[in-house]
Amino acid sequence: MRRRFEGIIPPIVTPLCGRDELDAAGLERLIEHVLAGGVHGLFLLGTTGEGPSLSYRLRRELIERACMQVRKRVPVLVGITDTAFEESVNMARIAANAGADAVVLAPPYYMPGAQPELQEYLEHLLPELPLPLLLYNMPSLTKVAYEVETVERAMDHEGIVGLKDSSGNMPYFHRLMALRGRRPDWSLLMGPEELLFDALIVGAQGGVTGGANVFPKLYVAMLRAAWAGDLVRCRELHSAILRVGNALYRIGRHPSSIIKGIKCALACLGICDDFMAEPFHRFRAEERALVQSRLKEVEAELSRLNV
Amino acid sequence: MRRRFEGIIPPIVTPLCGRDELDAAGLERLIEHVLAGGVHGLFLLGTTGEGPSLSYRLRRELIERACMQVRKRVPVLVGITDTAFEESVNMARIAANAGADAVVLAPPYYMPGAQPELQEYLEHLLPELPLPLLLYNMPSLTKVAYEVETVERAMDHEGIVGLKDSSGNMPYFHRLMALRGRRPDWSLLMGPEELLFDALIVGAQGGVTGGANVFPKLYVAMLRAAWAGDLVRCRELHSAILRVGNALYRIGRHPSSIIKGIKCALACLGICDDFMAEPFHRFRAEERALVQSRLKEVEAELSRLNV
Amino acid sequence: MRRRFEGIIPPIVTPLCGRDELDAAGLERLIEHVLAGGVHGLFLLGTTGEGPSLSYRLRRELIERACMQVRKRVPVLVGITDTAFEESVNMARIAANAGADAVVLAPPYYMPGAQPELQEYLEHLLPELPLPLLLYNMPSLTKVAYEVETVERAMDHEGIVGLKDSSGNMPYFHRLMALRGRRPDWSLLMGPEELLFDALIVGAQGGVTGGANVFPKLYVAMLRAAWAGDLVRCRELHSAILRVGNALYRIGRHPSSIIKGIKCALACLGICDDFMAEPFHRFRAEERALVQSRLKEVEAELSRLNV
Amino acid sequence: MRRRFEGIIPPIVTPLCGRDELDAAGLERLIEHVLAGGVHGLFLLGTTGEGPSLSYRLRRELIERACMQVRKRVPVLVGITDTAFEESVNMARIAANAGADAVVLAPPYYMPGAQPELQEYLEHLLPELPLPLLLYNMPSLTKVAYEVETVERAMDHEGIVGLKDSSGNMPYFHRLMALRGRRPDWSLLMGPEELLFDALIVGAQGGVTGGANVFPKLYVAMLRAAWAGDLVRCRELHSAILRVGNALYRIGRHPSSIIKGIKCALACLGICDDFMAEPFHRFRAEERALVQSRLKEVEAELSRLNV
Repeated sequence: MRRRFEGIIPPIVTPLCGRDELDAAGLERLIEHVLAGGVHGLFLLGTTGEGPSLSYRLRRELIERACMQVRKRVPVLVGITDTAFEESVNMARIAANAGADAVVLAPPYYMPGAQPELQEYLEHLLPELPLPLLLYNMPSLTKVAYEVETVERAMDHEGIVGLKDSSGNMPYFHRLMALRGRRPDWSLLMGPEELLFDALIVGAQGGVTGGANVFPKLYVAMLRAAWAGDLVRCRELHSAILRVGNALYRIGRHPSSIIKGIKCALACLGICDDFMAEPFHRFRAEERALVQSRLKEVEAELSRLNV
Repeated sequence: MRRRFEGIIPPIVTPLCGRDELDAAGLERLIEHVLAGGVHGLFLLGTTGEGPSLSYRLRRELIERACMQVRKRVPVLVGITDTAFEESVNMARIAANAGADAVVLAPPYYMPGAQPELQEYLEHLLPELPLPLLLYNMPSLTKVAYEVETVERAMDHEGIVGLKDSSGNMPYFHRLMALRGRRPDWSLLMGPEELLFDALIVGAQGGVTGGANVFPKLYVAMLRAAWAGDLVRCRELHSAILRVGNALYRIGRHPSSIIKGIKCALACLGICDDFMAEPFHRFRAEERALVQSRLKEVEAELSRLNV
Repeated sequence: MRRRFEGIIPPIVTPLCGRDELDAAGLERLIEHVLAGGVHGLFLLGTTGEGPSLSYRLRRELIERACMQVRKRVPVLVGITDTAFEESVNMARIAANAGADAVVLAPPYYMPGAQPELQEYLEHLLPELPLPLLLYNMPSLTKVAYEVETVERAMDHEGIVGLKDSSGNMPYFHRLMALRGRRPDWSLLMGPEELLFDALIVGAQGGVTGGANVFPKLYVAMLRAAWAGDLVRCRELHSAILRVGNALYRIGRHPSSIIKGIKCALACLGICDDFMAEPFHRFRAEERALVQSRLKEVEAELSRLNV
Repeated sequence: MRRRFEGIIPPIVTPLCGRDELDAAGLERLIEHVLAGGVHGLFLLGTTGEGPSLSYRLRRELIERACMQVRKRVPVLVGITDTAFEESVNMARIAANAGADAVVLAPPYYMPGAQPELQEYLEHLLPELPLPLLLYNMPSLTKVAYEVETVERAMDHEGIVGLKDSSGNMPYFHRLMALRGRRPDWSLLMGPEELLFDALIVGAQGGVTGGANVFPKLYVAMLRAAWAGDLVRCRELHSAILRVGNALYRIGRHPSSIIKGIKCALACLGICDDFMAEPFHRFRAEERALVQSRLKEVEAELSRLNV
């Protein structure tokens, strides 16, 4: 059985040129940039995409424009995480109508459901969804994780086809990997890029790595090296991935620094605007200058590594 | 200067009779029930009202029907907390058009803004709001609190007229109380009813207490006793409030037990249906029987106390 | 039945004049200072006393000197919290031999016991203790709380005579207060001084308030006002207590600021040295100057209040 | 420069036959069991060794007996983590006198030091220690981690020769690995055995894995396979390690289940008694029967894998 959702699937940022205004040209350039880098899919409206911070109108516009731009060259996954059941269903329908390939769902993130409540929630939601579903484990933002037992039960549903884990909790990821035997078509995808090596080496299907917005070839190269069992190359690329994080994700003091760093780097490269949805704001001149200079160093290193 | 938002302001539950279906008759009965109990306002779409779990369509229907039913007899406050700036603004406009008196806002609850980001967020939002704003501090669900310094800055804005604190963090509440001198028109309201006595005795303006859905007279009596400085009566009523919590809020194992308990009690009293929005579900027969029998005990005690 | 452990019982700092060196003269002055202020007992080797940071030798020296200095004028309570059962027992024996009146125990703070394990732990420890035991609830440092059900079971043991709550969790404190009917001899004591008013007004037996090291009369006056039901005076003193905290406990960025502030204030007043046990260090000149000047303001205010 | 502290270094359990009573014969058998399994060192008085729960007298007895039994065949590391500076120094001296090779230190675990305080603490402690020091990162129990910047500064001290990471935080571990260039003699050791594969594949020096008490050959085989770059064998052994955890560490509901499982398995194998220090208690008959039967299954699988 073929797994459609594998490989490097960047959680693309949502290019904005003002409050509630999509940078449509930037979105087109961004999509072409990552496709040219060899990525295997796109994930819209995730955390890096500031999904929950966008108006429903803008989310719809983004989905429709992105699907049109992609033209089925790779699968498009759409985040439908919401606190209201009906709004998740609506977004899934919009995604299906636009031609997307799957929807992605973290637990409802205001009211903290207990695990049995979360299981029922999935069982109630699933029949309403017109597309296959990937789970999105993101406990630092949703407060509630999909615990191993809940994932185990979710695997009984054919409509649920995988999980993206952004917990950073590698023992959890290993426990999920150990369940794969039950569902050969199931995709386990790693979120945090520092753990992409760990995930691939034990057989994960890919990564939904924020840095692939900027340097898609780096993460695609890692995937290929891991699939080829080339440990030396893997270690080299793993070190480069860590350096990308050190260079770009820790400027500024707030947890929003990662998204700001990625958007700012894309703006420096002329790919798209770096306006951000509330409650965040783009880097100011000083931080932008730092991103600019570090970007040069990273690019030099990546070129030495041929990625 | 008069404070419009003081007294007992129940965070009313949202009566539902099915998925995405408002129990309109139940809502009318509930509003008349609490108004007959002497409450001083209504708070719609809070946590007890399952606000974030409802579709936008249903939220609008609730606001319009509730305002129509209240007919300006008491102020109506409407929760507009959202993860998307534009959706908060939209909801505020709906509230204003329906005739509500204020809006209530917790921090955006997916992306965790740092305090300076939160301050800017408030400054950007305020000019868009057609109604006065009360802050809603609820860190267990939003992950981020309005820290004391942020509240201090918020007091510089005339449009922000108070804060409801549901943190359960009494030292924090005392620190906010100490700031009141700056804004005599500012309202500090207590969320958790176990702390209503603590709050009133140091001069808080009132309480947004979930139990007032079921027993409005009890909380109104506490307010009056505190305002009259009658410590003996306060202690008596405080004990009764604690017993309501013991009786009704700890059935079942999940954090959703409080809302389930309140809705179930209202259903037992024939006031409204106890259907719940996803990811929660109403109590089953066994738990309902327990609520029923405990409700009798609580009612007997409250009648001895004349409330 | 008489409660021996009630009133204001300062958790006295451990005056040090160097690493592992007790400032014996400072200790004498400190004890006389707080006794002159009217306190009703002393608590040695608590958190404010840096108990767990001191060598066992120094803890013993402190206990013996303090008991000798107090000469039974008020009860002496000794912290015996430890991660090793046997060391708690040893410290309790030292306390009994020195003439102390009770021992105080938080949960073992390395290995996190579950509540049933904690209950058994208390049952095994109790027969080994030569003195009455007060529980010490301090979950921010021990990770594990004495949950309400565990306290309820502890009340079945005559040898356990009370609880000091430093959780800052007022709803928890109210739930414990509601259990008092079972044990009229049981003492509930409040730790955080911002909550002393809240605790006394619902009938708590007293407070173990760090600020009483410096300003014993202030806290004793609060106790008397609360016992007299004088709400106006209580509010006035409550405000003063909050200002002590604002003035002295928030200098420096680290959680150790409270103990540093108290020790520094005592040094400014010439009462004892402010050397601190590892991993902490006394304030430097700049912060000390700030304490000095704020101390003057606080003293002026307290003198206006006659305390 | 040679690294002395590398390989599989089991954090050995402390065999007890009663309260404060070392099972000396059990200790001898345990040491011979793990040495026969090919381990490269022993770590005494860690978390698995219930270090902080033991009396100082018993800790000393354990150190002396263990060093005598080992007779320098492999290095012995001794945990000296304490809340009191002087007691850590005392324990280090006892270790040196007994012939141990290094000491291991987690942050003081009652008072939470900020990172600058923790850095000073290490700088003050280091000159007092007669043996090389390894840091022990265990934030779930000590509340405070050695943050990356603190480890970076610690690397400037020759006396600090490595770090054992039990945080389970793989991104943190990768960041530490990236610092190795500065100190080729530095040892990075992994605690949680589910992450041993991840750690070794990026070049860590070894593991301090609790399961190596019971199945030393399994972890030694993993080390060899990783050093040989044999990915297929690594994956096979990694799966076996995960199954050991599933089989033995999740019996019972409490966080103490891991240590209880290991001790119980050792008792089932006739190696040592499974008495536990307070606040824990050994498994009862029912759970023991479960361990017994699962042990058989694990042994069968390990024998198929030749370990």
